[in-house]
Amino acid sequence: MSREIAQKIAEKFNSRRTLDKLLGIEFVSIDAGAAVMKLKLTEDMVNVYGSAHGGTIFALADAVFAYACNSRNIVSVAAGCSIEYLAPAFPGDTLTASGKFQGGRGRQGIYDIMITNQDDKLIATFRGKSHATKENVLGDTPS
Amino acid sequence: MSREIAQKIAEKFNSRRTLDKLLGIEFVSIDAGAAVMKLKLTEDMVNVYGSAHGGTIFALADAVFAYACNSRNIVSVAAGCSIEYLAPAFPGDTLTASGKFQGGRGRQGIYDIMITNQDDKLIATFRGKSHATKENVLGDTPS
Amino acid sequence: MSREIAQKIAEKFNSRRTLDKLLGIEFVSIDAGAAVMKLKLTEDMVNVYGSAHGGTIFALADAVFAYACNSRNIVSVAAGCSIEYLAPAFPGDTLTASGKFQGGRGRQGIYDIMITNQDDKLIATFRGKSHATKENVLGDTPS
Amino acid sequence: MSREIAQKIAEKFNSRRTLDKLLGIEFVSIDAGAAVMKLKLTEDMVNVYGSAHGGTIFALADAVFAYACNSRNIVSVAAGCSIEYLAPAFPGDTLTASGKFQGGRGRQGIYDIMITNQDDKLIATFRGKSHATKENVLGDTPS
Repeated sequence: MSREIAQKIAEKFNSRRTLDKLLGIEFVSIDAGAAVMKLKLTEDMVNVYGSAHGGTIFALADAVFAYACNSRNIVSVAAGCSIEYLAPAFPGDTLTASGKFQGGRGRQGIYDIMITNQDDKLIATFRGKSHATKENVLGDTPS
Repeated sequence: MSREIAQKIAEKFNSRRTLDKLLGIEFVSIDAGAAVMKLKLTEDMVNVYGSAHGGTIFALADAVFAYACNSRNIVSVAAGCSIEYLAPAFPGDTLTASGKFQGGRGRQGIYDIMITNQDDKLIATFRGKSHATKENVLGDTPS
Repeated sequence: MSREIAQKIAEKFNSRRTLDKLLGIEFVSIDAGAAVMKLKLTEDMVNVYGSAHGGTIFALADAVFAYACNSRNIVSVAAGCSIEYLAPAFPGDTLTASGKFQGGRGRQGIYDIMITNQDDKLIATFRGKSHATKENVLGDTPS
Repeated sequence: MSREIAQKIAEKFNSRRTLDKLLGIEFVSIDAGAAVMKLKLTEDMVNVYGSAHGGTIFALADAVFAYACNSRNIVSVAAGCSIEYLAPAFPGDTLTASGKFQGGRGRQGIYDIMITNQDDKLIATFRGKSHATKENVLGDTPS
């Protein structure tokens, strides 16, 4: 039941996330409090030194965070995020970002997203803090 | 002198930052350890609730960080970043991100970037940690 | 007026902050949204390598944050904090931590605390996120 | 072998961490890249509202971080830390902080420490970034 709701939310989000589409971020899966996405890095996404632009890796993790923190049908926005870059990524690499809810207090939630490459090497760690509003994502569905 | 070098570095970066261009990020100014950029928010940059996507605001701040931390002609990469979102921004708003070097230890530097809207309201605060390599940005210029 | 309320709050806090007293943290000043404290580093506060323990520097900054975020007579608690250590400090050094409110959204506030030594060198930067409750610090004073 | 070295390092640290002793932090275990500690909260450790002082919870996590990041016999110092408080803790509660290495790049390492109470409830999450020097912790042991 909670997974079905999460999937309806993903469908709603998929049609609207323009930046994600520009970057080629691919939706993989969603569940209550969790999401997974992928991105194949292209030559366009590298910094002047040939490794992937931090902003691109952040965008991938941020997309996962947005889906995961809205997956329980409570409209939630980012209050803050932090990212640590642990190893470089290069054009041709496929990055997978996998995130889930860790815990929370009141309207605040913490989500950890790990970003790995095709060899399961940890490329970056992202931590997002969400702030829940009082509205539903699916307007017609009482929470 | 240091400002002239910074400006040459900006020219080099301006021709390559593909994501910045996709988003419409405008370069405003650069100096040793500092940079300023602008972004006019469009309808494409909003989340499903009508306010600007956190990823877009992050990308603006991250561009300022990249220019500022490379402005002294030492190739520097992001080791990590954090952003706190303090007030929403909307399509039609023009955001200005202004960043500067705060201090550092060894090869690590800290940069604070403040993101304000056209009414000087603080929209977000960004803190970037850079890691300096041993190379010059302008290959032909000894540092 | 707001400064007088802040000073009453400091008096209330001064009598209770046991950890601060154990460490020798000295209250310097408070105002609406701001506070300053000092700490003289002793041999007891160093790590096994002779420089000041990060936990001690954090405690100093955290005390400033607690006073500053409660200074407007709204009971506020820490939602999260981050600290970056930029230069080492040593026994005999006197650290000053100076913090102020940067901005906020809803019940969330951001405070930046800069920690410097006796030569005005930046030792660490601290960013605190506060969460305001609906109570007054001074129980008998309507906010 | 790596566990034995880690244990020797813990013995060396245990005799010196003055702040940890003042607070009553108890060493539980150490291994290569990992450590666990405990703290029973007392009335002295609460803020003016009756719940545990953020600084105390930070100190517990920070001790785990220090042990874990030095456990491989390379002298390492904190470059920065962040903590998110997720649920309050109270006098009488026993907190356990459990930390381990997540990944790293060059001399930088990332450690995640989770702080739970006696009911396994997540109280706070801490992320530490370490910077490795070129020295050994056990001076007489080549690394």
